[in-house]
Amino acid sequence: MARIVCFGEAMIRLAPPRNQRIEQARSFDVEIGGAELNCGVGLSRLGHSVEWVSAVPNNALGRLLRNRVREAGVGDRYVIESDGRCGLNFLEFGAAPRPTEVYYDRVGSSLSRVTRKSFDWATIIDGAAWFHVTGITPALSASALLTTKAALTAAKASGAKISFDLNYRSKLWTPADSARVLADLLPGVDLLFAGVGDAATLFTIPGPDFPTVAKALQSRFGVAVVASLRREGDATRSERIGGTVVRGPEVLESKWHDVETVDRIGAGDAFASGVIHGLLSNDATAAVETGAAMAALKQTIPGDLPLMSVAEIEAAVAGASVRVKR
Amino acid sequence: MARIVCFGEAMIRLAPPRNQRIEQARSFDVEIGGAELNCGVGLSRLGHSVEWVSAVPNNALGRLLRNRVREAGVGDRYVIESDGRCGLNFLEFGAAPRPTEVYYDRVGSSLSRVTRKSFDWATIIDGAAWFHVTGITPALSASALLTTKAALTAAKASGAKISFDLNYRSKLWTPADSARVLADLLPGVDLLFAGVGDAATLFTIPGPDFPTVAKALQSRFGVAVVASLRREGDATRSERIGGTVVRGPEVLESKWHDVETVDRIGAGDAFASGVIHGLLSNDATAAVETGAAMAALKQTIPGDLPLMSVAEIEAAVAGASVRVKR
Amino acid sequence: MARIVCFGEAMIRLAPPRNQRIEQARSFDVEIGGAELNCGVGLSRLGHSVEWVSAVPNNALGRLLRNRVREAGVGDRYVIESDGRCGLNFLEFGAAPRPTEVYYDRVGSSLSRVTRKSFDWATIIDGAAWFHVTGITPALSASALLTTKAALTAAKASGAKISFDLNYRSKLWTPADSARVLADLLPGVDLLFAGVGDAATLFTIPGPDFPTVAKALQSRFGVAVVASLRREGDATRSERIGGTVVRGPEVLESKWHDVETVDRIGAGDAFASGVIHGLLSNDATAAVETGAAMAALKQTIPGDLPLMSVAEIEAAVAGASVRVKR
Amino acid sequence: MARIVCFGEAMIRLAPPRNQRIEQARSFDVEIGGAELNCGVGLSRLGHSVEWVSAVPNNALGRLLRNRVREAGVGDRYVIESDGRCGLNFLEFGAAPRPTEVYYDRVGSSLSRVTRKSFDWATIIDGAAWFHVTGITPALSASALLTTKAALTAAKASGAKISFDLNYRSKLWTPADSARVLADLLPGVDLLFAGVGDAATLFTIPGPDFPTVAKALQSRFGVAVVASLRREGDATRSERIGGTVVRGPEVLESKWHDVETVDRIGAGDAFASGVIHGLLSNDATAAVETGAAMAALKQTIPGDLPLMSVAEIEAAVAGASVRVKR
Amino acid sequence: MARIVCFGEAMIRLAPPRNQRIEQARSFDVEIGGAELNCGVGLSRLGHSVEWVSAVPNNALGRLLRNRVREAGVGDRYVIESDGRCGLNFLEFGAAPRPTEVYYDRVGSSLSRVTRKSFDWATIIDGAAWFHVTGITPALSASALLTTKAALTAAKASGAKISFDLNYRSKLWTPADSARVLADLLPGVDLLFAGVGDAATLFTIPGPDFPTVAKALQSRFGVAVVASLRREGDATRSERIGGTVVRGPEVLESKWHDVETVDRIGAGDAFASGVIHGLLSNDATAAVETGAAMAALKQTIPGDLPLMSVAEIEAAVAGASVRVKR
Amino acid sequence: MARIVCFGEAMIRLAPPRNQRIEQARSFDVEIGGAELNCGVGLSRLGHSVEWVSAVPNNALGRLLRNRVREAGVGDRYVIESDGRCGLNFLEFGAAPRPTEVYYDRVGSSLSRVTRKSFDWATIIDGAAWFHVTGITPALSASALLTTKAALTAAKASGAKISFDLNYRSKLWTPADSARVLADLLPGVDLLFAGVGDAATLFTIPGPDFPTVAKALQSRFGVAVVASLRREGDATRSERIGGTVVRGPEVLESKWHDVETVDRIGAGDAFASGVIHGLLSNDATAAVETGAAMAALKQTIPGDLPLMSVAEIEAAVAGASVRVKR
Repeated sequence: MARIVCFGEAMIRLAPPRNQRIEQARSFDVEIGGAELNCGVGLSRLGHSVEWVSAVPNNALGRLLRNRVREAGVGDRYVIESDGRCGLNFLEFGAAPRPTEVYYDRVGSSLSRVTRKSFDWATIIDGAAWFHVTGITPALSASALLTTKAALTAAKASGAKISFDLNYRSKLWTPADSARVLADLLPGVDLLFAGVGDAATLFTIPGPDFPTVAKALQSRFGVAVVASLRREGDATRSERIGGTVVRGPEVLESKWHDVETVDRIGAGDAFASGVIHGLLSNDATAAVETGAAMAALKQTIPGDLPLMSVAEIEAAVAGASVRVKR
Repeated sequence: MARIVCFGEAMIRLAPPRNQRIEQARSFDVEIGGAELNCGVGLSRLGHSVEWVSAVPNNALGRLLRNRVREAGVGDRYVIESDGRCGLNFLEFGAAPRPTEVYYDRVGSSLSRVTRKSFDWATIIDGAAWFHVTGITPALSASALLTTKAALTAAKASGAKISFDLNYRSKLWTPADSARVLADLLPGVDLLFAGVGDAATLFTIPGPDFPTVAKALQSRFGVAVVASLRREGDATRSERIGGTVVRGPEVLESKWHDVETVDRIGAGDAFASGVIHGLLSNDATAAVETGAAMAALKQTIPGDLPLMSVAEIEAAVAGASVRVKR
Repeated sequence: MARIVCFGEAMIRLAPPRNQRIEQARSFDVEIGGAELNCGVGLSRLGHSVEWVSAVPNNALGRLLRNRVREAGVGDRYVIESDGRCGLNFLEFGAAPRPTEVYYDRVGSSLSRVTRKSFDWATIIDGAAWFHVTGITPALSASALLTTKAALTAAKASGAKISFDLNYRSKLWTPADSARVLADLLPGVDLLFAGVGDAATLFTIPGPDFPTVAKALQSRFGVAVVASLRREGDATRSERIGGTVVRGPEVLESKWHDVETVDRIGAGDAFASGVIHGLLSNDATAAVETGAAMAALKQTIPGDLPLMSVAEIEAAVAGASVRVKR
Repeated sequence: MARIVCFGEAMIRLAPPRNQRIEQARSFDVEIGGAELNCGVGLSRLGHSVEWVSAVPNNALGRLLRNRVREAGVGDRYVIESDGRCGLNFLEFGAAPRPTEVYYDRVGSSLSRVTRKSFDWATIIDGAAWFHVTGITPALSASALLTTKAALTAAKASGAKISFDLNYRSKLWTPADSARVLADLLPGVDLLFAGVGDAATLFTIPGPDFPTVAKALQSRFGVAVVASLRREGDATRSERIGGTVVRGPEVLESKWHDVETVDRIGAGDAFASGVIHGLLSNDATAAVETGAAMAALKQTIPGDLPLMSVAEIEAAVAGASVRVKR
Repeated sequence: MARIVCFGEAMIRLAPPRNQRIEQARSFDVEIGGAELNCGVGLSRLGHSVEWVSAVPNNALGRLLRNRVREAGVGDRYVIESDGRCGLNFLEFGAAPRPTEVYYDRVGSSLSRVTRKSFDWATIIDGAAWFHVTGITPALSASALLTTKAALTAAKASGAKISFDLNYRSKLWTPADSARVLADLLPGVDLLFAGVGDAATLFTIPGPDFPTVAKALQSRFGVAVVASLRREGDATRSERIGGTVVRGPEVLESKWHDVETVDRIGAGDAFASGVIHGLLSNDATAAVETGAAMAALKQTIPGDLPLMSVAEIEAAVAGASVRVKR
Repeated sequence: MARIVCFGEAMIRLAPPRNQRIEQARSFDVEIGGAELNCGVGLSRLGHSVEWVSAVPNNALGRLLRNRVREAGVGDRYVIESDGRCGLNFLEFGAAPRPTEVYYDRVGSSLSRVTRKSFDWATIIDGAAWFHVTGITPALSASALLTTKAALTAAKASGAKISFDLNYRSKLWTPADSARVLADLLPGVDLLFAGVGDAATLFTIPGPDFPTVAKALQSRFGVAVVASLRREGDATRSERIGGTVVRGPEVLESKWHDVETVDRIGAGDAFASGVIHGLLSNDATAAVETGAAMAALKQTIPGDLPLMSVAEIEAAVAGASVRVKR
């Protein structure tokens, strides 16, 4: 399988158990997650050799993060220790009509403190078939933006394919700032993950539907493939999930999955894993079906990480029964 | 905002986790609740200054109760210590076709032991815009009934508006006893919460529907406003919830909320909070919509208490999406 | 009520909490279960005097098993201590599209090590009105098969009625081995529990529906009554459950129950309890309705055991509301 | 081994985990206990056939109690259901200088509501070698006192040996009331458990030491054997424990055990088990050593019940090492 | 009793259960604490009316903090909402030879963002008998220092007594910076809490013993009373604790308490509560004994807060036994 | 640092929380451990690059094991999947006078099923400076013994140093069988860990003290260095721990550590890590002090694994205070 490099921040996630509100909490369950890491874990489960590039503080929280990255099957050889805090987020599971909420607490995180010299990108990328990053990383700080650019340049130079997930976060920057930076970063990207909402917010691409948006993005940024998750329903415990991949003129839509949600966080990143995997073998149908099945399965698993097997993904794609397996 | 006084018993609630049966329990989760307290917590969340008047034992359970009353934002200045036990209830969460059950264990509770001299109602009520009590309080003991009457008299004298929730509890008294007492207490009440079932049981008001029942109650007891929660469905995990307020000849019905229930207990009391709040500004539409939204949101929160914000109530009234908020 | 004897293995069941995957587990919840034991617990709840015959190791796990058998209301007087391990199974609760999975870890279990002399069947069965066993017991080992035969012979000799649940387990033996053994054991059985799937796998009885299958089993093995649970839906949290009893030419179908599932394991065994109970009074309608209600209620209770009351079963049969009972 | 009957109340015990104070509790761990039951569990572990005679309410808490009595190896055949509550106690584990505290909440318990006709003592006692009760049972209510007398009379008539543990509880009655009743009950008792403190409080027997007190009790009540636990140290986590048995003129003192305490509750009842066991074989040395070892081991086990094996008791008597056993 | 005002930051404290290391954590227990708040809780337990002045963010973590402040019996009327984060700390319980560690994560906290206009000190202090602050508050930020000065000025003007706890935190500022600021703040303080270590670090007062240090501090800053906790032992589970109060020339030493430690955090603040309480009645002996007993008892209670009763403090001062209280 | 290879079995460890007995357990805490793995984790913490060679089943339990091996910082590249079960052990924490007990349940484990072809030892060992194995591995099965020999041969051939820990397990083989096998394996070993007890049991080397035993082992097997942990005390919560290394004629004894034990399991393996680390730099004093400090620290950490830092080891060697670190 392929060697893959992901670059981004991961946070420790703290969530009260049993649908409690945060203000009621007497304990928090501890998980980890981060958009690029989550995607890397999915790729590791699909058999690839994945390295996560990031920075953590030199303390027990940094060790916790690294421990669990390795536990999840992703390499931490290129994770450096730097100043700054361990990014945190606080998650409150909702139930209709109360939405699930995430409070980010990552100002001053270790990754926001990196410098251009923190990573030797030529070495890191060497031999990699794919490089994945999202719009969160360049939003963290000016130096994180410079570092992202350096990484993209090195990836391009090495011949690795590049995927980019817009993942616009309004708490980190304005649409205008984001659009300006992305206009610089996106050209040259091979695969773009972009929701209809982010496309409208950042680039005032109006839709009305994802294929239209995808084609506008293709033409604006010269990106060959644009992909997105689709969702139906407005409840926290059940949903229909599918995916769409637009490759050149082709529009590929996956089957729908009826999902009994346990934990919605990370579904988009799991989708990205599947799509990248499919495109690594140049199979767009496999990409969209694997991505959608992984997103659906992710929602049944506590935490942000898509801890699933290839056999389970194949069963979901095949629409296997959920009767008890003995 | 307004100064509001609630009078009634609260209990420590013990429930086994994870849908266990009580007979399987190796641990109980500890919450507190009581009809009037729950309503007071809702009013506190809406910005009012709420005092809960009650009695607790002078022991660790009494301290636990008071601690959590204050935690929930309600004042305990007028909570006295008296003889008697700390009322308890044991809750077993059901799942269809097994109903949720509550076992009350409150015989001999501290509030049942109060005497007419326990509370100085003139001082307590002074400056209050509203007084709230339910049919549970006078059912606790003869002295609790006398105390309830004294409170209602003081409230009337001070010019506070009065709300009364029938809350008939068959374990505490017979319909005949209840009806006799209520015939004495209800005249002069400004707002009555009464379900169709209780109205039939206590006053043989046949229905067939809530507006008809409400009007019968208005004319029988001279109550200006009668309100009730409405529910649809027969499952423990999902339900449709709405509310109705009948003010004079007007019948106001709220929108329906599709609810993914976490904990059904206390929804009626949360509804009461919203209705009282609306009527404090003489806005019956706000009353019914705020009440229904609070009842719906309450069912998503563990414990009896409506621990929610004004912004969340407004979002539910507006029918906002339950997609993840970041 | 009747004296009833059940014979089979029970295991300690280990399941991670909160829908976690086993590979994420930092703790396992501990339950016990075994097809015959589960059925015996249901019969005990219905008022019968039940003895569970089995073997456990002489260690803390064996004590745990016996403790909880007695806790559940079943006698352990005829449980012997033998060599071998305590059987375990690991349960991972699924959520659509991820199925629930059970990993059995019972090779070398104590019951597989029994010898023909381990149990004095004449004494054990004496006075029993009913004897229950499943196809799992003879599959455990050659000596377990011999012991099963000895038990069936003794039951027959004593005049006890005999029920047998096919419960084919592909991890324990092949269809051919199972069919050969069952052809020897089933004649003389009074009540057979057999799903359409097992009948097809073991005896190539094609269906298409359960009554047809049941009648083929009746004629092939001379069994008077054949019964099976019916399910509708393909989700892990909700299902429709009913039962069918085919007695001679009669086909009795229970009402359907809408079930909010908490724990699906053991529903078939709970069904068996109800059917046996009904047939003990020779009431096939009671059998099918009691069985179906018990299966439905079981799915609302954590663990394998049908820890419910007669009143709850009657309420489910009557289709009572699931509104909160106070 | 012998058939033994114990008579008394058991309670559900609720204790916050991790040394929390009750007023901080968000959950309670659930155990059961009662002086006579605890002693019966110890005797069951020593191989005797023990029946616990008591009353519980007909609800989930009553079922919980009975389930766990059977789990612990004691018979519940003679446990009746009666009006009244399930007795509770709330336990707060201390740490020096803060003592452990127990709050009893058992007013109106089911056993306090029994009548003389509730139990058929002749049948219950028939064939029993020993009958055990404590001073708590007659203190519960007038009818409980009458029932205790009836039990003692039946035991005497049947030839069973009788043990009685003073267990004075100041929350239940005054020293004067207790002394008056005990003066009536104690003559005819074969074995009396009495601490120096209770003897002083109830009978103004001054000491100074246990042998002196024991001999005074022997002569005052005609009791052949008087026994008591000894403790050294004033800490909650470690203690030295031993026992003394005074049989006629003989004073037998056990070895001291250095104990790392996990849960102190029930040590005295475990001691009683061991002493009764020794006296059943008329071996006073075994009595005092078994009793002391069981008390010491009990303090290492969570809950009130002495859930230990004969081998463990023998190892403690022998002073075996506490190095890890593999 | 007196009206008392405390000013400082509180944090949410996250600690893994069961002596786990932070890097192993799958859950964190949630407590709150802050030097001044802890002291205020102790004063509230002693019967005083205490207001905590601080700033929290307008989010769920801020609500959690305020909820638990009120739960603990302290007023939050003067707690404002401001920008900035909710301060956190991560606690890892040690065991010898591994020390307990606290990681602070409070950069950018809400209290560090206050401005001189955030609080109306004249109103807040009005009627207060005592004002308490520690050296942590002025170390948080330049504006926090200005605010501290404003508070001290207002306290002085109003006639309230002032206590100040050095509490030097090397993560927040250097000894030199701290000493410079403290030289400005300490003159006029009525009661100073200062350990021998901090005195040496900040003011190069060499010792050798606390009375000598205290007298040096008295003369350098014109402080009438200087107090400190004393500890003996180098273990995490047991310790000897006492206190010393130096008032003018008098040196008062409390008795020693043998402590079985559950949670060491907050002992110094509990000591401060007791000393302030004693000095409010001008009783230095009561001050030192109450302070030492509260520190000892605090170490038996999970969390930072001294949740104890006057009766318990008196029992500890009297050296009462830790035998089980029933 | 060095490349190090460890070879052996790891098990999932299941232990009831809060000092519960296994027979009381309603949940088990999940840890992993194995003598060679534990040692490898310690070496990884000291900065070495460690690979663990083993076999696990291809199921969720196997994944759990591997996940946590990587989490602990050890490589799993050479862990194969094979038939057989996942080895388990059940741990019951004791308290004096009740010892801690471990029940092994590893018959038929995956490592016992390996064949000589399972591992390509030349490749695995290539470049390694050290190879570590214990007497448990060859005891698992005949093929495991052959595989152990192959590994030792390859290690020898490659020039890696070899350490061997006797770790005699009486449940796996007899002393005679063990002695015969070890006589074959030990010659050529560079470092032998051997307790006085095992030396007596296996080789009838009488003592009386460890240096004497060590020298007998040196001369019998031609081993240059023999090392052992020393313990003082007979309690489960506190102990004194030290170590001894005998290198040729030199006898080096570490300082003693006073240890507050949290979890005793794995201390010997942690000691081995430290000794190997010291000998890698040929520093026997560092070896014995590092080993002893690591053993002491290990006993403060839940689970079998020595999850500690170099700084913590150095602090323990230096005898630093256990006062709270902030």
